[in-house]
Amino acid sequence: MAHYEVKPSFYNYVFSPYLEPAIKVNPGDTVSLYTDDAFESRITSEDVSPKAAVRNAKFLNPQSGPVYINGAEPGDTLAVHFESIEFTRDWAVSCVMEYFGGLQSNSITKMLQKPLVEEVYIWKSKDKGQTWTNDKIGVTIPANPFCGTLATAPDTEAIQALTPGQFGGNMDCPDICPGHTIYLPVHNPGALFYIGDCHAAQGQGELCGVALEISAKATLKFDVIKNKVTNWPRIESPEKIMSVGSAKPMEDAARIAYADLIDWMVSDYGFKVLDAYELLTMVGGLYVANMVDTTYSLCASIEKKYLKRNS
Amino acid sequence: MAHYEVKPSFYNYVFSPYLEPAIKVNPGDTVSLYTDDAFESRITSEDVSPKAAVRNAKFLNPQSGPVYINGAEPGDTLAVHFESIEFTRDWAVSCVMEYFGGLQSNSITKMLQKPLVEEVYIWKSKDKGQTWTNDKIGVTIPANPFCGTLATAPDTEAIQALTPGQFGGNMDCPDICPGHTIYLPVHNPGALFYIGDCHAAQGQGELCGVALEISAKATLKFDVIKNKVTNWPRIESPEKIMSVGSAKPMEDAARIAYADLIDWMVSDYGFKVLDAYELLTMVGGLYVANMVDTTYSLCASIEKKYLKRNS
Amino acid sequence: MAHYEVKPSFYNYVFSPYLEPAIKVNPGDTVSLYTDDAFESRITSEDVSPKAAVRNAKFLNPQSGPVYINGAEPGDTLAVHFESIEFTRDWAVSCVMEYFGGLQSNSITKMLQKPLVEEVYIWKSKDKGQTWTNDKIGVTIPANPFCGTLATAPDTEAIQALTPGQFGGNMDCPDICPGHTIYLPVHNPGALFYIGDCHAAQGQGELCGVALEISAKATLKFDVIKNKVTNWPRIESPEKIMSVGSAKPMEDAARIAYADLIDWMVSDYGFKVLDAYELLTMVGGLYVANMVDTTYSLCASIEKKYLKRNS
Amino acid sequence: MAHYEVKPSFYNYVFSPYLEPAIKVNPGDTVSLYTDDAFESRITSEDVSPKAAVRNAKFLNPQSGPVYINGAEPGDTLAVHFESIEFTRDWAVSCVMEYFGGLQSNSITKMLQKPLVEEVYIWKSKDKGQTWTNDKIGVTIPANPFCGTLATAPDTEAIQALTPGQFGGNMDCPDICPGHTIYLPVHNPGALFYIGDCHAAQGQGELCGVALEISAKATLKFDVIKNKVTNWPRIESPEKIMSVGSAKPMEDAARIAYADLIDWMVSDYGFKVLDAYELLTMVGGLYVANMVDTTYSLCASIEKKYLKRNS
Repeated sequence: MAHYEVKPSFYNYVFSPYLEPAIKVNPGDTVSLYTDDAFESRITSEDVSPKAAVRNAKFLNPQSGPVYINGAEPGDTLAVHFESIEFTRDWAVSCVMEYFGGLQSNSITKMLQKPLVEEVYIWKSKDKGQTWTNDKIGVTIPANPFCGTLATAPDTEAIQALTPGQFGGNMDCPDICPGHTIYLPVHNPGALFYIGDCHAAQGQGELCGVALEISAKATLKFDVIKNKVTNWPRIESPEKIMSVGSAKPMEDAARIAYADLIDWMVSDYGFKVLDAYELLTMVGGLYVANMVDTTYSLCASIEKKYLKRNS
Repeated sequence: MAHYEVKPSFYNYVFSPYLEPAIKVNPGDTVSLYTDDAFESRITSEDVSPKAAVRNAKFLNPQSGPVYINGAEPGDTLAVHFESIEFTRDWAVSCVMEYFGGLQSNSITKMLQKPLVEEVYIWKSKDKGQTWTNDKIGVTIPANPFCGTLATAPDTEAIQALTPGQFGGNMDCPDICPGHTIYLPVHNPGALFYIGDCHAAQGQGELCGVALEISAKATLKFDVIKNKVTNWPRIESPEKIMSVGSAKPMEDAARIAYADLIDWMVSDYGFKVLDAYELLTMVGGLYVANMVDTTYSLCASIEKKYLKRNS
Repeated sequence: MAHYEVKPSFYNYVFSPYLEPAIKVNPGDTVSLYTDDAFESRITSEDVSPKAAVRNAKFLNPQSGPVYINGAEPGDTLAVHFESIEFTRDWAVSCVMEYFGGLQSNSITKMLQKPLVEEVYIWKSKDKGQTWTNDKIGVTIPANPFCGTLATAPDTEAIQALTPGQFGGNMDCPDICPGHTIYLPVHNPGALFYIGDCHAAQGQGELCGVALEISAKATLKFDVIKNKVTNWPRIESPEKIMSVGSAKPMEDAARIAYADLIDWMVSDYGFKVLDAYELLTMVGGLYVANMVDTTYSLCASIEKKYLKRNS
Repeated sequence: MAHYEVKPSFYNYVFSPYLEPAIKVNPGDTVSLYTDDAFESRITSEDVSPKAAVRNAKFLNPQSGPVYINGAEPGDTLAVHFESIEFTRDWAVSCVMEYFGGLQSNSITKMLQKPLVEEVYIWKSKDKGQTWTNDKIGVTIPANPFCGTLATAPDTEAIQALTPGQFGGNMDCPDICPGHTIYLPVHNPGALFYIGDCHAAQGQGELCGVALEISAKATLKFDVIKNKVTNWPRIESPEKIMSVGSAKPMEDAARIAYADLIDWMVSDYGFKVLDAYELLTMVGGLYVANMVDTTYSLCASIEKKYLKRNS
C-alpha cells in the first residue's frame, strides 16, 4: 500500500464529475491532502473585512482533489478511513459575516432588515493546536479537529462547494473526524473524492456560520465496497453508527438521517423496520451538525452495543 | 419547608390558567406528584389497539396539578428543582400509532398514503427500573428517566397537553430530569405548575412519537425568582446551562434555543452578544428533543466551564 | 327569522369555550356585529408608535362575540353566510411594526438583527369606502372588504386571537367576504362564533403583517348542518369551493388545504381520491392568504364548473 | 432579424455551463424549439408503469438547447419574449407516481409508509389542443399552455433539470407562457438558454407532481439587457410584473418572491422600500406555482396600474 501527499497548486469550488483528478490511487492507499481554509487564507487579521475578502461567493470553500480511486464504479460505496488531521499553522479564524449564519437573515430566508456588523475573531494556539484562545472574548477551548467538507462527485451535476447533500459535501459534521470511517456513494468511475474546510473546533450547528477555520493536512485511507449502494453519507466510529441527512426544512434532514439509519439497521444488522424504529425511539441520538448552509445537516446515531440482540 | 404528596383523582388535558389548583405550596416546599402515562394506562398489552385506546386525542397526555406556588406573580420565574423520579410499576409501553410519529405523515404534514400498521411494544424491568427489556426486539437498555411534560399555565390561553411552547409543555426533552433545575415563566398568580408524561427512557427526537411511557412519582422543589422574566424554558445541570426552543419548522426551534442561550450568557454572564454567538459556534451543543409533537423542541447548551473568562 | 345587532361593550382576545355568549340566536337568524380594528383603534395617526399602542400582544385583535347558535352541537358544522360589511369610519390604518411581518424576523423566526423602523400609514376614503388613498405613497386602491378573523371556539383549548387553525381564527383570507359562505367545525354547544379584524383591503399574504385595518359592522346569517364533521374551514362562493389550511412550515398549509379539498370532492361530489388529486393538478387554485401570523394560511380552490362530470 | 427552428437530436438533463450550444443567435432573432414531454414520450398509455418508464431520475425532464445568444455576458439580463406554443400531438399525459407529488412522501420528506399506487391519466383533444378531455374522470378542461422549465446556465454549477432556482429552471409557473416576457440572469457568455417541460394545462401547485405533459414547439424571441443584474426570474405580462422565488421551506420562496418584487418596484418604479412593502400588503398577489419539485416556487405579482402614483 502506497502513501501519497497532495499539495494543490489550485483549488476547486464545485463537487463535479467534470474535473480532472489531482491523483489516482489504489484501494488501501493512504493520501495526505493539504487543505486551505474556507476563505483561502484571505482573512488574516481582525482588520480584514470578510465582505472584501470573499468578493465572490462562488470562490468560497476551496476543495482539494479530486482523488480518483482505481476500481471504484457507479453503484459502489467509497469507505474513507479518516486517519489524522495536522494543522499547518498556529492561528485560526472565525467571523460574523453580513447576511449569513444561524441567527441572521440571508438571500434565501430573506428579510428587509440590515445585516449584522462584521466582526472577525482570530484564535491562537500555543500548544501545537491542542487548545485555542481568543483574547477578545477571553476564552480557551480544546481542539476538536474535523473536516467540514468531504464529498464524492455527484451524478451528472456539478454542485457548489458550500452545499451538503447525498454526495456528502459541506455537512459541517464534527463526526467526520480522525478515527472515524465515512461511507459515500460512488456515482462516477474513480469516485472523485473532494475534501476541504478543516475546522480546529466547532460546536453543534456551526451557529454563526464560520467555525474555527484553519489550513491543514488531512490523511485518509480509501477502500471500495463493491456493489453496495449508499444513499446518504454514513459514519462509523468505534462506538456508533451514524447517518447524516441534509435538507430543508430541518425536519426533513432529521427524517432522512433516522430513515437511513433504519435502513442500515435492517440491511446489516437484521432488524425489522418497526423494531429499528422503536429502538431508535429509546436510544437514538440526533444532533444538528449545521444550521447555516444551503441545506441543514443532522446526524442520527445509535451505539453499536444496542445492535446486538439478546439470544 | 414542607413535603406534600399529590395523588390525582382526575387529570387535566390542557395547560390552563382556568383550572383549580390541586395544591398550594410555599417556595422551598417539595411536592411528590403521581403521574399517569400518556395513555392513562389504557394500553396494557400488545393486544390493545392504540387507536381504540386513545379514542379522543384531546384526552391524551394526562397532567397532574396544577400546583399553586404562593408568592409567584406574573413577571417572575419559577425554578423547579427536579429531585427524583420513582417508577410505580415494572412495565412500560411504547407503540407505533396510525398517522403519528417522526417517519409518518399526520393530520398536519398531510399525505394521501395509508398509515403504518399499529404495533405495541411492552418493555419490562426486573431490576426496579434500572434496565428495560423488550423481548420482541430482543434488547435491553438502561433507564433514562425524565418527564416529557412540565409547564406553567400560559397567559390567557388554555393549550392542549400535547403541545410544547414558551410555557414549557410537552417538550419531551431528556434533560428535564432528576438532578436538573428547570426555569419556567410565571404568567399567572401561583404560576400553576403542571407535570406528566414520565418516560423510563427516550432517545433524541422521540422518533416514533411514543417513548417508554410509564406511571411514576415525581418529586420537585419549587423556588420563585422575583421580577425575572423568562421567555423560554431553561435548564441548569451541574455542568451545563440549556435553553429549549419549540417551533415549526425545526430551524426556528434551533434559532430560538440558541438565541435564548445568548440572552442568558449576556444577562447573567456578562458576554457581549456577538462574543456569545461566536463562542457557541465553537462549543455549543444542539440536539433534537422531539421531532414528533405539534411543534418541534430543540435543546441548545453550553458547558459552564466556558462561561468563565480568562482575566 | 330575526335580525340582531351586537355592539360590544368589551372585546375578547382568545377563541375560547370558556367565555359567556354575547347573544343567543336561532339558525336562520341574521346578526350584525360591530368589530373594532386589530389595534382597538389606538393607532389614529402617523404620529402614534405601534409599539406604544400595542403594549401587550395578548390584547391584540379584539373579537366580537361569541354568538351562541341554538341547536349547534359538537359534531355539527356551522354555515356562516357572510351578507355584508359596512365600514364605520372613513379612514383605515396599516403600519410596519418591529419584529413582525413577512419580511422581518420575529420572536419565532429569531435573528440577532435590529428590527425595521416603525412606520404608520393612514389611508382615507372620500367615496364611502369604495376606494382608499394613501398620500404618502401616492396611490389609490379599490376596497376589498373582508374579515381577517372568524372562528368557532376550539375543543377544550382557549387560543389567542392572532392564531389561525382548524377552528378558523386569524386566517386573513380575502375570500372570507360578503357573498361567500364559510363552514366551520362545531366543538361546543352553541358553536360559540367569534369575528373581528375587518380589512378594507388586503393582498395575498398580508405582506407587512398589517392590512388596511378598519372598524366595521359585519352582518351574517347562521345555519347549522347537523351531524356533519368539518375538519378545516371551508368557503363556498358562487363560482368556487375552497379549503383553508393553516400550519407551519407553509408547505404543510398547502398540503392541508388541497387534501381537505379532495375530501370535499370525494364526499360531496363523488370523485375517487386519485381522480380528484389529478383534476386539482390541472385546474386547482392555491394562493397564500397570510404569511405573517403564528401559522400560515393557504387557500385551495376549484371552480364548481369542473365538479360536474361528463356523462 | 432571423427565425430559426431547432429539432433536437438529443436532449440535456442538466442546466449546465459545460454543454455545447445547439444554436447561436443574435438578439432580436426568434427561435422555435421543439420540446419533448417530461418523460421523453415513454408513457404512451394507461398501461405503462411510470416507474418502469422513468428508470433513472437523472434522465427526466429533457431540455432543448442550449441557445447561445450572441453578445450576452455575465452581469447582463436575458429577456425572453414567449411568442407561442404549438402542441405537436393530440394527447397529453399525467400520472400518479410512487413517492412523488404534493400529497405523498418522497426521498427528502421521508416517511416509512408505502407509496401510492401508480395511476396513468391520458387526456385527449379533438379541437387542436383548445380543450382536453379525460374519459376516466369524465372531465373536459380548457388548455392553459406554458413551459414548466426555462433556464439560463448557472454560474459554475450544473444542476439537474428537475430543479428550480435563481437561474429559472423547473419552476412550473403557469405565467411562463405565450404573451409574457421572462427575465433571467446571464452567468455565462451567450447566456445558454434551456427550455422544456411543456404543459397543456396545470393548476397552481402542480399538485400530483405531473401536469398535462405534452410535446410542443415553443417560439421565443431573445433580447439582451446589458449591465443589468437579475437575481431571480421575473415575468412581465401586459397587466402585471411578477417575481418567482424558489426555495424550501415554502415560506422562504414567498419571502424571496415578494422581496425581489420590492427590489423591482424600488429600482425601476421609484418606490421607497417600505412604501413598496406597504402597497404589496394591500394589492400584491402570491400563488403557489409548484409544491412538488426539489424546491417550491411561488409567484408574487402586482398589477401595473398600481405602479403609477398620484402626482
